[in-house]
Amino acid sequence: MNLKEILQKKAVEIEAELKKALQKKQIYPAMLYEAMAYSLFAGGKRLRPILLLSACEAVGGKKEKAIAFACAIEMIHTYSLIHDDLPAMDNDDYRRGRLTSHKKFGEAMAILAGDALLHHAFETMTEACINDFSMSSLQAMNAIAHGAGVYGMVCGQVADVLNEGKAMDEKTMYFIHKNKTAAMLQAALKAGALLGQATQKQLDMMEQVGEKMGVAFQISDDILDVTGTLEELGKPVHSDQKNEKNTYVTMYGVEASQKMVEALSEEAISLLKAFGEKADFLINLTQYLIARKN
Amino acid sequence: MNLKEILQKKAVEIEAELKKALQKKQIYPAMLYEAMAYSLFAGGKRLRPILLLSACEAVGGKKEKAIAFACAIEMIHTYSLIHDDLPAMDNDDYRRGRLTSHKKFGEAMAILAGDALLHHAFETMTEACINDFSMSSLQAMNAIAHGAGVYGMVCGQVADVLNEGKAMDEKTMYFIHKNKTAAMLQAALKAGALLGQATQKQLDMMEQVGEKMGVAFQISDDILDVTGTLEELGKPVHSDQKNEKNTYVTMYGVEASQKMVEALSEEAISLLKAFGEKADFLINLTQYLIARKN
Repeated sequence: MNLKEILQKKAVEIEAELKKALQKKQIYPAMLYEAMAYSLFAGGKRLRPILLLSACEAVGGKKEKAIAFACAIEMIHTYSLIHDDLPAMDNDDYRRGRLTSHKKFGEAMAILAGDALLHHAFETMTEACINDFSMSSLQAMNAIAHGAGVYGMVCGQVADVLNEGKAMDEKTMYFIHKNKTAAMLQAALKAGALLGQATQKQLDMMEQVGEKMGVAFQISDDILDVTGTLEELGKPVHSDQKNEKNTYVTMYGVEASQKMVEALSEEAISLLKAFGEKADFLINLTQYLIARKN
Repeated sequence: MNLKEILQKKAVEIEAELKKALQKKQIYPAMLYEAMAYSLFAGGKRLRPILLLSACEAVGGKKEKAIAFACAIEMIHTYSLIHDDLPAMDNDDYRRGRLTSHKKFGEAMAILAGDALLHHAFETMTEACINDFSMSSLQAMNAIAHGAGVYGMVCGQVADVLNEGKAMDEKTMYFIHKNKTAAMLQAALKAGALLGQATQKQLDMMEQVGEKMGVAFQISDDILDVTGTLEELGKPVHSDQKNEKNTYVTMYGVEASQKMVEALSEEAISLLKAFGEKADFLINLTQYLIARKN
């Protein structure tokens, strides 16, 4: 199998676990379940859960202990996309080739489906912590809570909204990318490593890997917004221009941005090499991410 | 001190703890902190944290262990109000006598401030669980996650939105009140009792108290929407009529609804009597809630 096939296989495995996590107890009203499932099973790359499980394995851990947390981080990512697409935010009609949640279910239901996924992520993790009752599980939940919350993703989103249409310096742009995107990748890698009983040194390295990989991933997303097509991306291109968003691409152009992506990826890979061959998959994944078309 | 003064004193103590919980680490951008604080410090009754701390004390526990969870449940309650007030939901301009979050900060920031408070609630609880590392703390977080999430408050909100302007039977109306309002009061009482090392029998009773108290509280809220004034409530009256909401009042009238409130409160009080004099405060509070004007 090539890496694309391996990633697809992993995504299928994660989807099966997500289905279990969502259906463990019946969710009522049925419309709430439908709205949650519509966005959760919209064919995402499952990058964050794949990173979490791979980091767990890279430090010698067993992925069984990490699956609930992998599901939770994907639920959090999905909620953030639903809210990000809302008319008051990015006002996007399409996501992954399908209507966005508010276009499909209406705005009220989209807000609530997002809230519901965020709640369900924490309920899923809390139950996993009760079943496992270990400090490493609690610390993994904390890493995810921290990366997604007011010191991570949410503050990145806020900074992004506040700076729309404004001239920005590189420091501010880096702050946004680091928090809006990288913080959740860092959280995935750190949580996975914690669940695999990593050493403090390994945890610190995984956090650094996450920051570099995350910023590179966001810059490459911004590049694709300019160079990609609707068919490749499953969402409208040039949306950054439409929303007057500042990106590395609008600031430095495609070529210089591509060089930054490559430099950051190199740094992430050189850190990952310290983990030995158990981290080969993460290295391949990093290389794959900078060459992706969607 | 009369009960009103005691409640005000408790609210002041909880606000001091909320201020610590929000400022522990600096939140950036400043606007995010402002929007979170604007709604969190808008002079609410702090009913849910007061219930949580009182339930802990009613079973002989110490409130120090419960404070982080009391703060978290108020953050969750506040996020739910911010999202509930949004134009796509109840579209309310005023809350507690002040502009609602989206009227003050804009819709994007209101959505994000709500998300941020929900995240921060779970981050606060997770940190408390790490510091305490006990099964009872984890179970308290689980009770709150469960009561607020897709099997509690959120599903009540969804059912409420889906049934707006529709004819409803009493069963559906009870489902909405039980989940939208009572589930969080139940969660507060259960979490507090767990943190106070309650027996299983005590936990079951607290859950029943919460259901009865919560439904009574919601019906009395609906009564006040008809009989109260803007000055008393700090929010527009007759909003249920405006939003074509079905309530016990629109279904049975004020007088019959008032009788239901009294019957439910009696049931809650007779359950609380089993806890002995340590539950006197909760009994007084239940009586106070049915006579309140806001």
